[in-house]
Amino acid sequence: MDDNAFREAATASIDEIIKYYASLGERPVVSTVEPGYLRKLLPDAAPEQGEAWNVIRQDVEDKIVPGLTHWQSPNFFAFFPCPASYPSILGELYSATFAAAAFNWICSPAITELETVVLDWLAQLLGLPEEYLSTGPTRGGGVIHGTASEAVMTAMTAAADKYLRAALAADHPGFETLAKEEKEDLRALRRSRLVALGGGTAHSSAKKAAQVLGLRYRSVPAPAANGYYINGDGLRETLAKVRAAGLEPFFLSTTFGTTDTCAVDDYASIVEVLDADLKTQVAAGRDAAASDIWVHVDGAYAGSALVAPETRAIMCPAPLDPSNPNSEATGTAVLRRFHSFNMNMHKWLLTNFDCSCLFVRDRRWLVDALGADAHYYKNDYSDGGLVTDYRDWQLPLGRRFRSLKVWFVLRTYGGEGLRAYIRRSISLGERFADSLKARSDLFEIITGPQFALTVFRAAKLTADEPLEVTSARTRRVCELVNGGGKIWVTGTTLEGGVAAIRVMTGNFSTHAEHVDGASKIFVETAEKVLAEEKAKSA
Amino acid sequence: MDDNAFREAATASIDEIIKYYASLGERPVVSTVEPGYLRKLLPDAAPEQGEAWNVIRQDVEDKIVPGLTHWQSPNFFAFFPCPASYPSILGELYSATFAAAAFNWICSPAITELETVVLDWLAQLLGLPEEYLSTGPTRGGGVIHGTASEAVMTAMTAAADKYLRAALAADHPGFETLAKEEKEDLRALRRSRLVALGGGTAHSSAKKAAQVLGLRYRSVPAPAANGYYINGDGLRETLAKVRAAGLEPFFLSTTFGTTDTCAVDDYASIVEVLDADLKTQVAAGRDAAASDIWVHVDGAYAGSALVAPETRAIMCPAPLDPSNPNSEATGTAVLRRFHSFNMNMHKWLLTNFDCSCLFVRDRRWLVDALGADAHYYKNDYSDGGLVTDYRDWQLPLGRRFRSLKVWFVLRTYGGEGLRAYIRRSISLGERFADSLKARSDLFEIITGPQFALTVFRAAKLTADEPLEVTSARTRRVCELVNGGGKIWVTGTTLEGGVAAIRVMTGNFSTHAEHVDGASKIFVETAEKVLAEEKAKSA
Repeated sequence: MDDNAFREAATASIDEIIKYYASLGERPVVSTVEPGYLRKLLPDAAPEQGEAWNVIRQDVEDKIVPGLTHWQSPNFFAFFPCPASYPSILGELYSATFAAAAFNWICSPAITELETVVLDWLAQLLGLPEEYLSTGPTRGGGVIHGTASEAVMTAMTAAADKYLRAALAADHPGFETLAKEEKEDLRALRRSRLVALGGGTAHSSAKKAAQVLGLRYRSVPAPAANGYYINGDGLRETLAKVRAAGLEPFFLSTTFGTTDTCAVDDYASIVEVLDADLKTQVAAGRDAAASDIWVHVDGAYAGSALVAPETRAIMCPAPLDPSNPNSEATGTAVLRRFHSFNMNMHKWLLTNFDCSCLFVRDRRWLVDALGADAHYYKNDYSDGGLVTDYRDWQLPLGRRFRSLKVWFVLRTYGGEGLRAYIRRSISLGERFADSLKARSDLFEIITGPQFALTVFRAAKLTADEPLEVTSARTRRVCELVNGGGKIWVTGTTLEGGVAAIRVMTGNFSTHAEHVDGASKIFVETAEKVLAEEKAKSA
Repeated sequence: MDDNAFREAATASIDEIIKYYASLGERPVVSTVEPGYLRKLLPDAAPEQGEAWNVIRQDVEDKIVPGLTHWQSPNFFAFFPCPASYPSILGELYSATFAAAAFNWICSPAITELETVVLDWLAQLLGLPEEYLSTGPTRGGGVIHGTASEAVMTAMTAAADKYLRAALAADHPGFETLAKEEKEDLRALRRSRLVALGGGTAHSSAKKAAQVLGLRYRSVPAPAANGYYINGDGLRETLAKVRAAGLEPFFLSTTFGTTDTCAVDDYASIVEVLDADLKTQVAAGRDAAASDIWVHVDGAYAGSALVAPETRAIMCPAPLDPSNPNSEATGTAVLRRFHSFNMNMHKWLLTNFDCSCLFVRDRRWLVDALGADAHYYKNDYSDGGLVTDYRDWQLPLGRRFRSLKVWFVLRTYGGEGLRAYIRRSISLGERFADSLKARSDLFEIITGPQFALTVFRAAKLTADEPLEVTSARTRRVCELVNGGGKIWVTGTTLEGGVAAIRVMTGNFSTHAEHVDGASKIFVETAEKVLAEEKAKSA
């Protein structure tokens, strides 16, 4: 493909892309192909001779697009959103062009430096404490990972390393002078007692990270009675239980906006319990650094909302204990007490997948655990401060130029544009919830609207209706709504077997008319299901 | 940014991109900015109001491009190449447009199915045994990861899981019936004895994977005398050593094309030693499945060469022991005896970063270790065969639509085009090596040309010249060549402190004239360094 062929191909593609976006509202949201459809349409092997672009492009429309589920459709109310935007597409275009395996600074200084700058911009936009900025007082900073799964695995890796270093040094005087094999033995044995904690409603990524890293994992209860989030009581209980079993808790994954209900963990009480726990551990002769359990805050989806300052109080509404030196730490300031935070711009901030931003309060934790020269092979640590090698902040060596799309998005929309988008999403969520409230004969809201997510179920017909009946009705409504093909929503099962429906209104393309359309479909469907039930019982 | 603004912006960007490629030969290869240059050029915070595209685009040219090191320059002879291509850029364009967090089949069937199809195409193009195809007899298949680091970590995770399952079941009768905590204790303790092995010249990714996973790691010697690769003798020695220390080897990372010299491990003797080891272990009463050490073949760079059939014999030139049932397994057929293989299309197959293709002989190993429902929580394994959920083949849940760019590249170039590119790269390597041979007064080739990589040093002036003198001369030549700014090469230090220079001729933009230009620079520089030495000693 020469320059002219590329110009022609790319120009035609741009028209296709614009047409694709324009057509989204008309297309069925969910693909209706059968499993294995594509293999039947494609040859068994790559062609021997190269093919012309117009043949390939036609295949995109004819063979790929029918197999897509359109996440950016205005009628996609499922899961969480995952929209691209025109500036973010341009970011990928340039990123692909400036191809490089930028594994250190000189391999392409702009790739490293732009990332540092735009993640500082983003941290400010989100109202994170300055400790999470690269220029902050505690050597913090942000790094772009692919997904929240990678972010939480990286945080967990750093936390385990931080714990083991402190615990081994404290419990084995002269540890550093031991032979390499002895150190390794002690480290491996100690690691086998470690346990990571995560909220019972936390995303599967925390558990999977532990599974991959070969670490134990325990859930902190997040009961329905509490609102599906974890609090200090549950944490205290879990800590007591794992310690009684001889295990060593080192990491807690908390959630700012859980997957099922967008619940927010009760950070004020969590801080209280952690502070008390730390005091107890130290009083019992344990090392203070090791006893400082790493707290990761996963705001994969809801973290984007923080660009709108009025959402920040949701993170920590209660003032902390006034005798606590962090007593002023309400809202995002509570992050000062924690260790890492991540949010996915690719979920709710107009940047196409993948763009998970991980912020840490002290980047040395990452570099110690992931640096090319691991701390246990050297004694002095050097951080010039000028040159960042992000390979030491993550597992992979090479890196894509992902900060370009972040830069393009932040500049094209500006703080104003991003806030407006978030606020519109949230207010559409309220509009949808209001429509359910207006039909309390048909629907019962379980949680929300919170962060553009409403979780609800079919209303009970009688106060003493058994749960299974209400859940079956809820599932039937969900099934029929999704089967209708006009909108796509997510059915889920909450604690205690409560079937529920999640409706998320965060897509960029979603406007009031689409939300009203969805409400109408729900009302009609629920009425139909009730009629079915009536007919059956008649 | 509305449709028209996007059309205008994208069209202008395409012209910029074409101009960028056209200008590559004229630009200095390595960026000359100072650390911290970009922060000085950018505001301290994101703008409040959105900015127009033409302002942003101008900043790309003015502020970003000067900070790029141009990996696609025809004068980039460093590391390994990392070229994009026009069809691969179009792939990213569409991939960004079809944004989705495609974590399972229905989330976008085409994203899953195209990946399965094109990785089967690729496996065939590379001449992998059919065991590595999704349609093969052993439930194999390929999956696109971001980088080789992620591929090797994933393989190591699956290997540890496979080992632990087999070993625990064998050594603890009734293991599955034990309480969850007991199983967990046994597993964690056993895991603490595991050791991963990797070649002494293997890429750092294997060691880093072990570091992240909290697993021990030992290098198998890859001495200069052997040609910088590992063989059966070194492996036998290492196995004996780790077993004597009470450790349990479960994984061996081997290399098809090492980073420093593109050396290829001696697979025939490795198979011999592994077969003998397996026999010994089983005779000693160990479980056969646990004793089957997982062998990963990392062909991150050189793997691409396999599209040219004449390179395949390099993988395993010696016929295996004829009494061995795999005796016909020369070339890539030796992979039948192994477990996983990865190659990065983003290194040498015209697909922009990131695109690391991991192939396994049995995909159940991945799903068992990484599946949402880990095997130790359930007893029966179900694989419908029709629907693949790639989230169970990797750590991250969500996935980018990376197979599009693979599809576009394979179709645009065809098998023919890809082979032609690989062969041109290799023959340019030979051309460069010939130019060094013609000046044996100045240069001594250490290894190669192999896979378009030549490793050489300054010639000794006398037969008994001390190593430090030759190494200092080599480093000086490298420094001056890179300092000249016309070409970029990599200096390295091989075993025993032998300084060397690596020249890689795999870039798509590199042609004979650029290689001849590089040769000329080397000759002139070496002559200059000799003159300097003479002047100093005079």
